[in-house]
Amino acid sequence: MTVTALNDLSCVIMAGGAGTRFWPASTEDKPKQLLTLIGDRSLLQLAVDRAIACVPAERVLVVTSRRLHDAVRAQLPELPARNVIAEPERKDTAAATALATLAVQARGGRKLCILTADHLIGPTELFVAAVTRAAAACEDTDAIVTFGVVPTHPATGFGYLEVERIDGDEARPVKRFVEKPDLATASAYVASGRFLWNSGMFVFETAAMLAALHTHLPSHLTTLGDVVAKAVDGVIDDHALAAAFAALPRISIDKGVMEKHHNVRCVPARFAWSDVGSFPSLAEHLPTDPAGNAVRGHLRSLDAHNNVVWCEDAGDEVAIVGLSDVVVVRAGQRTLVVPRNRAEDIKKLFEH
Amino acid sequence: MTVTALNDLSCVIMAGGAGTRFWPASTEDKPKQLLTLIGDRSLLQLAVDRAIACVPAERVLVVTSRRLHDAVRAQLPELPARNVIAEPERKDTAAATALATLAVQARGGRKLCILTADHLIGPTELFVAAVTRAAAACEDTDAIVTFGVVPTHPATGFGYLEVERIDGDEARPVKRFVEKPDLATASAYVASGRFLWNSGMFVFETAAMLAALHTHLPSHLTTLGDVVAKAVDGVIDDHALAAAFAALPRISIDKGVMEKHHNVRCVPARFAWSDVGSFPSLAEHLPTDPAGNAVRGHLRSLDAHNNVVWCEDAGDEVAIVGLSDVVVVRAGQRTLVVPRNRAEDIKKLFEH
Repeated sequence: MTVTALNDLSCVIMAGGAGTRFWPASTEDKPKQLLTLIGDRSLLQLAVDRAIACVPAERVLVVTSRRLHDAVRAQLPELPARNVIAEPERKDTAAATALATLAVQARGGRKLCILTADHLIGPTELFVAAVTRAAAACEDTDAIVTFGVVPTHPATGFGYLEVERIDGDEARPVKRFVEKPDLATASAYVASGRFLWNSGMFVFETAAMLAALHTHLPSHLTTLGDVVAKAVDGVIDDHALAAAFAALPRISIDKGVMEKHHNVRCVPARFAWSDVGSFPSLAEHLPTDPAGNAVRGHLRSLDAHNNVVWCEDAGDEVAIVGLSDVVVVRAGQRTLVVPRNRAEDIKKLFEH
Repeated sequence: MTVTALNDLSCVIMAGGAGTRFWPASTEDKPKQLLTLIGDRSLLQLAVDRAIACVPAERVLVVTSRRLHDAVRAQLPELPARNVIAEPERKDTAAATALATLAVQARGGRKLCILTADHLIGPTELFVAAVTRAAAACEDTDAIVTFGVVPTHPATGFGYLEVERIDGDEARPVKRFVEKPDLATASAYVASGRFLWNSGMFVFETAAMLAALHTHLPSHLTTLGDVVAKAVDGVIDDHALAAAFAALPRISIDKGVMEKHHNVRCVPARFAWSDVGSFPSLAEHLPTDPAGNAVRGHLRSLDAHNNVVWCEDAGDEVAIVGLSDVVVVRAGQRTLVVPRNRAEDIKKLFEH
């Protein structure tokens, strides 16, 4: 394994996601990956920063939705315009991965690292080291090399990868993909020392992925291959892409390819990884006062403990008197107040 | 009693108050009386509307602080500029009343009605009727005629007026002023049928008040009398007024004059009166949803009952999940969250 493993690598960041768990901070036009949840860079900007630590900006691509395209471009002036690819509609990760692979191949790229846009990852050095190991592990093989995160608790919100053992840095075969487990199963997984969280990030040679698509999702390959082949100067025709996407089935790359592919390997990630799935889980990444209140913005408090306060405008001020363990969020003209242990119920506000 | 009782009446609205009970809606530059707590007019604007229902706008004056002068003028374009008088510093209600009386006398006014700026009062017809009765009751006498509010509960936040009986519309002698009582005393007052809430509003002939000041607070009369006498076209010199106020003791008109005056009478107010002393007490004046949430602005809620939501910008949106009996206030860059029964503790946020 050498740094030359990165020489012909492109990084593609998947940034088309939506979701309501960060409402009211997130909206359809500003989903989680575009939010500056901590510090002064959005999760997407942080993901691009990490990718650029691996490869030059010209080899960093972002796949997003048409709706988000302009906002993504505005956040990423360091990327060439043609590196931001807009999906005409969401057809899950198989379509996005196939499109990215074809686009990178068309530009002469030989290896590809698929990255997520909405996780907190650090430090950058350990991230670069893991990408380097994975890129080396797929070199001249048909391996798809995933990043597995060593679980810190029996999470029920992630899929898991089963491997022989989780220690050591080298790539090892993935024996099985498993969907989000129940708590008992997750606990058994963690106790076994053989399961890693599926980070949703993976590295492969473009030829390997195209061959796997040919075997397991041939319509993805032919439908999108035609469109990419007709691109002029790397710019894909909007109408042709829309027609192609309309014809594709909705399926994830895990289900459509990875679970069936004969050579999936895994590099245990040694970097810290957090999916920050909700405001309560954001608390540990925010500055905390002596009363345990995690705050972005300014907090005045009295008899108030372990609250999570998040203000889109860090100049905003929140006052809490006599309430603990609640989440208070301010964004635009919207304010949310919910107990930490009911934050998952925010989505019910939108079910009517 | 006839409507002619209003013919030579001026109305003076006391609008110099400050306070933190409506923080974060209220600030030093925008105290309670300038807030649009309900509907689309501030409490001060509503007070001026009621005064103009009694007398022409030329005979409606506002006494406020220098700090608030411009904001008051901006809210009240219907009043002549010289009708907004700015106190150089707060010296309680005796100074404000003396200044107002002298100013009205200098303009040829013969009777004066002192009104509060930060209470909710209605309907206007009953208010005008009460002012008319009080103005008639002081006609050609040295009576100071207060408005007593029939108590609806044993409030401990107001002073009380003792009278012989509280039924009937006609003016009757006030036997005694009492300060804010404890709950047991307040309960006894209400049960006795002889006590009314002191509304802080009263009517008198200017000659009567000047004579009473001469007897009980002579320094107020001479100090302010000199300044007003030197006014040019009704405009009082700022520096002279500042010097005069600096010399005055801080005392309320109740303590300084009313409690000592031999002829204080009371008209029971038949209008609805609320001091809306805090956000919880505002709830009954706001639109309420089926779950008992009182809202200015828009509320999305789930398992949320009897909350009070107040947004300075009525276009703002608040979401509450799984919390009841809390107050949520949004104003400018500030947000407050506090249980209804702890709203009084807001002021403790400012004691450090």
